[in-house]
Amino acid sequence: MAHADLPTHLDQHQDQGKDEQRAVTQPTQLQKARKRFLKGLSYFAGDMEPFGKWMSKQFILLQILDWVLRGAAQVMFVNNPLSGLIIFGGLILQNYWWALNGFVGTLFATISALILQQNRGAIAAGLYGYNGILVGLLMAVFSNAGDWYWWLLLPNAFMSMMCPIVSSALGSINSRWDLPVFTLPFNILVCLHMVATGHFNHHFPQVLIQPRTELPNITWAEIDVPKLFMSVPVGVGQVYGCDNPWTGGIFIISLFISSPVTCAHAVLGSAVGMVSGLALAAPFGDIYFGLWGYNCVLACIAVGGMFYALTWQVHLLAIVCAFFCAYLGSAIANVMSRFGLPACTWPFCLSALTFLLLTTETKRILKLPLAKVMYPEKNLAYYWKLKKQEKREKAEAEKKEKEEQDRAAKEEMFLNEKEQLRLELERMKESRDPKNKGSRDHGPPLYLKVAKHRHEH
Amino acid sequence: MAHADLPTHLDQHQDQGKDEQRAVTQPTQLQKARKRFLKGLSYFAGDMEPFGKWMSKQFILLQILDWVLRGAAQVMFVNNPLSGLIIFGGLILQNYWWALNGFVGTLFATISALILQQNRGAIAAGLYGYNGILVGLLMAVFSNAGDWYWWLLLPNAFMSMMCPIVSSALGSINSRWDLPVFTLPFNILVCLHMVATGHFNHHFPQVLIQPRTELPNITWAEIDVPKLFMSVPVGVGQVYGCDNPWTGGIFIISLFISSPVTCAHAVLGSAVGMVSGLALAAPFGDIYFGLWGYNCVLACIAVGGMFYALTWQVHLLAIVCAFFCAYLGSAIANVMSRFGLPACTWPFCLSALTFLLLTTETKRILKLPLAKVMYPEKNLAYYWKLKKQEKREKAEAEKKEKEEQDRAAKEEMFLNEKEQLRLELERMKESRDPKNKGSRDHGPPLYLKVAKHRHEH
Amino acid sequence: MAHADLPTHLDQHQDQGKDEQRAVTQPTQLQKARKRFLKGLSYFAGDMEPFGKWMSKQFILLQILDWVLRGAAQVMFVNNPLSGLIIFGGLILQNYWWALNGFVGTLFATISALILQQNRGAIAAGLYGYNGILVGLLMAVFSNAGDWYWWLLLPNAFMSMMCPIVSSALGSINSRWDLPVFTLPFNILVCLHMVATGHFNHHFPQVLIQPRTELPNITWAEIDVPKLFMSVPVGVGQVYGCDNPWTGGIFIISLFISSPVTCAHAVLGSAVGMVSGLALAAPFGDIYFGLWGYNCVLACIAVGGMFYALTWQVHLLAIVCAFFCAYLGSAIANVMSRFGLPACTWPFCLSALTFLLLTTETKRILKLPLAKVMYPEKNLAYYWKLKKQEKREKAEAEKKEKEEQDRAAKEEMFLNEKEQLRLELERMKESRDPKNKGSRDHGPPLYLKVAKHRHEH
Repeated sequence: MAHADLPTHLDQHQDQGKDEQRAVTQPTQLQKARKRFLKGLSYFAGDMEPFGKWMSKQFILLQILDWVLRGAAQVMFVNNPLSGLIIFGGLILQNYWWALNGFVGTLFATISALILQQNRGAIAAGLYGYNGILVGLLMAVFSNAGDWYWWLLLPNAFMSMMCPIVSSALGSINSRWDLPVFTLPFNILVCLHMVATGHFNHHFPQVLIQPRTELPNITWAEIDVPKLFMSVPVGVGQVYGCDNPWTGGIFIISLFISSPVTCAHAVLGSAVGMVSGLALAAPFGDIYFGLWGYNCVLACIAVGGMFYALTWQVHLLAIVCAFFCAYLGSAIANVMSRFGLPACTWPFCLSALTFLLLTTETKRILKLPLAKVMYPEKNLAYYWKLKKQEKREKAEAEKKEKEEQDRAAKEEMFLNEKEQLRLELERMKESRDPKNKGSRDHGPPLYLKVAKHRHEH
Repeated sequence: MAHADLPTHLDQHQDQGKDEQRAVTQPTQLQKARKRFLKGLSYFAGDMEPFGKWMSKQFILLQILDWVLRGAAQVMFVNNPLSGLIIFGGLILQNYWWALNGFVGTLFATISALILQQNRGAIAAGLYGYNGILVGLLMAVFSNAGDWYWWLLLPNAFMSMMCPIVSSALGSINSRWDLPVFTLPFNILVCLHMVATGHFNHHFPQVLIQPRTELPNITWAEIDVPKLFMSVPVGVGQVYGCDNPWTGGIFIISLFISSPVTCAHAVLGSAVGMVSGLALAAPFGDIYFGLWGYNCVLACIAVGGMFYALTWQVHLLAIVCAFFCAYLGSAIANVMSRFGLPACTWPFCLSALTFLLLTTETKRILKLPLAKVMYPEKNLAYYWKLKKQEKREKAEAEKKEKEEQDRAAKEEMFLNEKEQLRLELERMKESRDPKNKGSRDHGPPLYLKVAKHRHEH
Repeated sequence: MAHADLPTHLDQHQDQGKDEQRAVTQPTQLQKARKRFLKGLSYFAGDMEPFGKWMSKQFILLQILDWVLRGAAQVMFVNNPLSGLIIFGGLILQNYWWALNGFVGTLFATISALILQQNRGAIAAGLYGYNGILVGLLMAVFSNAGDWYWWLLLPNAFMSMMCPIVSSALGSINSRWDLPVFTLPFNILVCLHMVATGHFNHHFPQVLIQPRTELPNITWAEIDVPKLFMSVPVGVGQVYGCDNPWTGGIFIISLFISSPVTCAHAVLGSAVGMVSGLALAAPFGDIYFGLWGYNCVLACIAVGGMFYALTWQVHLLAIVCAFFCAYLGSAIANVMSRFGLPACTWPFCLSALTFLLLTTETKRILKLPLAKVMYPEKNLAYYWKLKKQEKREKAEAEKKEKEEQDRAAKEEMFLNEKEQLRLELERMKESRDPKNKGSRDHGPPLYLKVAKHRHEH
């Protein structure tokens, strides 16, 4: 379903590439209509570039709102304010208080990045906001003080404002391997807050999370198939800590608007997570609650077309990564529970980083340079352009080589003919003047002598 | 208080810079007196360079003593044997046995660095000793075998001798980001010893540290304000594991001798830690005991002028870092307690490294290259020199540009005058010889023709 | 014993080096016999290069078998299929099911590396198999489902196939410091599997590992000395998770075949581990079971001649590293037991990496570039060659310098003689023509004038 729409996005960029080459040919009626459709699409799909350009001339508060919305969507690697708006809608549907905390987190993280004079382009893409929204949301989700405990906004604001600092620091490390920081700042800061206060705290108590100490009660006959299917959208929703399937569904729509490839991989990842949960004999409750899905959703998106150019090999790699992420998720959840902590998105970060660090000798798995990463469709267009260029260069090199060979062959032929003539001439001369024979044997051939004379004059 | 003395240190280096520039001008009586005072100050303040130079010609055992004392002070980033001596005094005031262990640790770490042929300059600055003193002290502090358990000196010596190895290894990693190793070797080695033996060990038992499992009993009415204020020097003392407020006070004095800026940030950091403890509802006992202070002390010193050049922005950053460090301290203490371990100075190391990895686009937050780091006052002088040089270069560049513009303007004016003259001449010629008109319209102007002729000849 | 055989290996390469230099000299009868012996040795000792070359032309399945056997031996840094075969023999002696799992693990890891198009040379050296065999073996060892639980082969195959991915990712990181990945992929993946499932799991239950919570019962009178000595081969066997002393003995033989230096360091490391266990008051059962030995075995091999060129200093460093590793082993075992995990070979990896990151200013501790690492004997030959070359270069440089000096001295002498003559000539001229005097005082000396004239003509 998502793949059906894929070509439209891609052709857009393809066309751009083609247009540069042959701006002479007249577009047909159909091509014109298509172009107009693609232009219309670019107003709300992809990264909404025209809107972003228009925004950059507006009042700063309006700009910040744009950045906050883009930040909300960047959790799923989507740089699109419309998606962000829809995601905030989904959050409000889930819980007003959580949505408020998420908004506060994004806002303060963005403002902090401005104060710390971080890169303006990165701020405008929402890259300093997405950790903030997660920090805000999850601190509200895991707080044991109940909703509308207003004091929570204090550590929320502080931790959100720490996001750009931790992001920048991690960025300094990861940039050595050209890797993104993913949601590591969020993971670090939420775990920091939760373990610093803990369940037994007067000001900011956390929900009690304890390790499993006995065999879970699993009877395969009791499995609830509709709930199992429902766990797929719930898994997508759990990326933002939401267990409402409608909220998850809204998130899926918001992804589809910006990038169908991302949307498809999100759903695929959630399904892989659910299957892994069954394979590893997880309690059904955890699976229904989407706890096995959300990390796989993110890992599958990240590997499947976002940081690698999407090929069939990369698609398979994304599925393997989702399985690995599910395994890792269970492991990390068990370890973290010893400290009263949730798994957050550590499993996604670690598995995606591992798969991005992979090096192979095949050209079908191409890791995009971080500066070139946009969204899967645009990345794919970039990859195709790169491949075409390579092909052209190769063809040109081959052509040149062939021409060189032809010329060499011709020259040789010409020389041979000349030599033939010369030899005949010699023979003729010899027959007339037999004295020359001895000198010809030892001296250079005639045509070289001629060349020598030419140089001397 | 500390800031009042600041200019004296700075001017000293300022003067040096100025002297280089204008050695011609005669110093006044006041300037002479000031210079003499500053020279006198340099004999015991700062890094005691003259003393260090004198020492380098002495007997090796005496040199090692100097290095050990500098090592003792380097825990607080102070490269000053007098401060080290005072610190040892404070330790003896606290506990003879601990002081002995600290001395053994510093000594063995320094000797080990010599055996392993580490950089002699770094050894002489005490950079291989400070982890040793902490290893020695804290192994004694956390030992459950009681004071004067002589066998403890065995693992103490072994672990101290491992310090340079771990330091060197961590240095190889951190140098990629131009970062110091801080007290990471100490943290690693003490945790290693404590968790390798544990509370239930026949040879080297450790004190029992257990995680909190119930709500602490906090009644705000019972708060003891004098003890709260006392917790500030105690926090400084806890850097060396000492809970005696007098020992803490002595440490503050030792800092003041070498560098008032360091001293001020130490006190500030300890206060921030205390406030954070109250904000996060920590048990009062922990706060009084200085457990919330010592990491903030170190973090505040490190960021506030030691590795960054001290500006107002950096000063604020140091305070933020101290708050972050306090948060992190609580988190790490809770995590480590699950393994029966204290927090050591992990929170300081991690928070300071995070803040040193921060990159911004503002010039007011300048991270000094590691090779240029001395002490805050000298760093500041370096920063000012750098800024002045930049200003001068900028001014020169502007001046040059202006001169260039002036010259260009003059030339243009000159050319214009010439052209005016030429045109008048032409007009005069034309009026006399009307045949020339047609050729002049299409051909190049006369002065170009002249140039052409010049080239042809 | 092992060192007695050492020269044979080394001379082999030494001879090669010498042959290149003086291929003219006729070898004596003894030299010929020795050479033949060394050639025979190379067919089964070292890395069996002739066999490897012959294999590379065989059918792919046979090649894979070679790679699997080399992979089995690479756990101990041995690149030798015969050693691998003997090791599989030892595993079969221990437990059929474990051996099968080990084989499956190596096979799948190697195949996965082929699919992921990893470096063919590395695959052929077994560098993608050794983590696989450990994953397979240890998953079987720590499974609580009993032997012949066939479902275990599923996660075994999956985790083995993840090995090349994790290896490649870690390799990308470690290559920045020119460090190997050691058995880190195995550690990560086995811990992942164990903690993801845990003791309370329906599909893949793990053995119950719990932290120590009371003083172990140690009475020194009850110590069993023969068992203590037996713990040395058992410690070598525990590298593969085997507690049978005969299996350990077989492993020692397999090491001796390929590289006596490796074998000696393996035994030495195991002994150091046993001593450390006694020093840290470990329960005797753990020591007898070889748990204190296996990490030290690996650490001692890695540092003692494998990644450093073997000198006396390096030999001592290897022993220190083994002690450090034993300490670290106890620490990590205690920490991991909180999560129900064994220590695996984390202690070896961390201690060896620390010691490989060490930098010193002495030339006697030379870390080989990773691309040049073969086996201790060959590494030593490389080191000697390097040293000889350096010596030669130094001698040549000295010779050149001396020649330069001689020539300069001669020239000076010559010039002096000339000048003497010139001066005498001058004096003679002057006596005849007294007018010249004034001009000679201010003008350049005569020989300069002559030079000037020469240039002008």
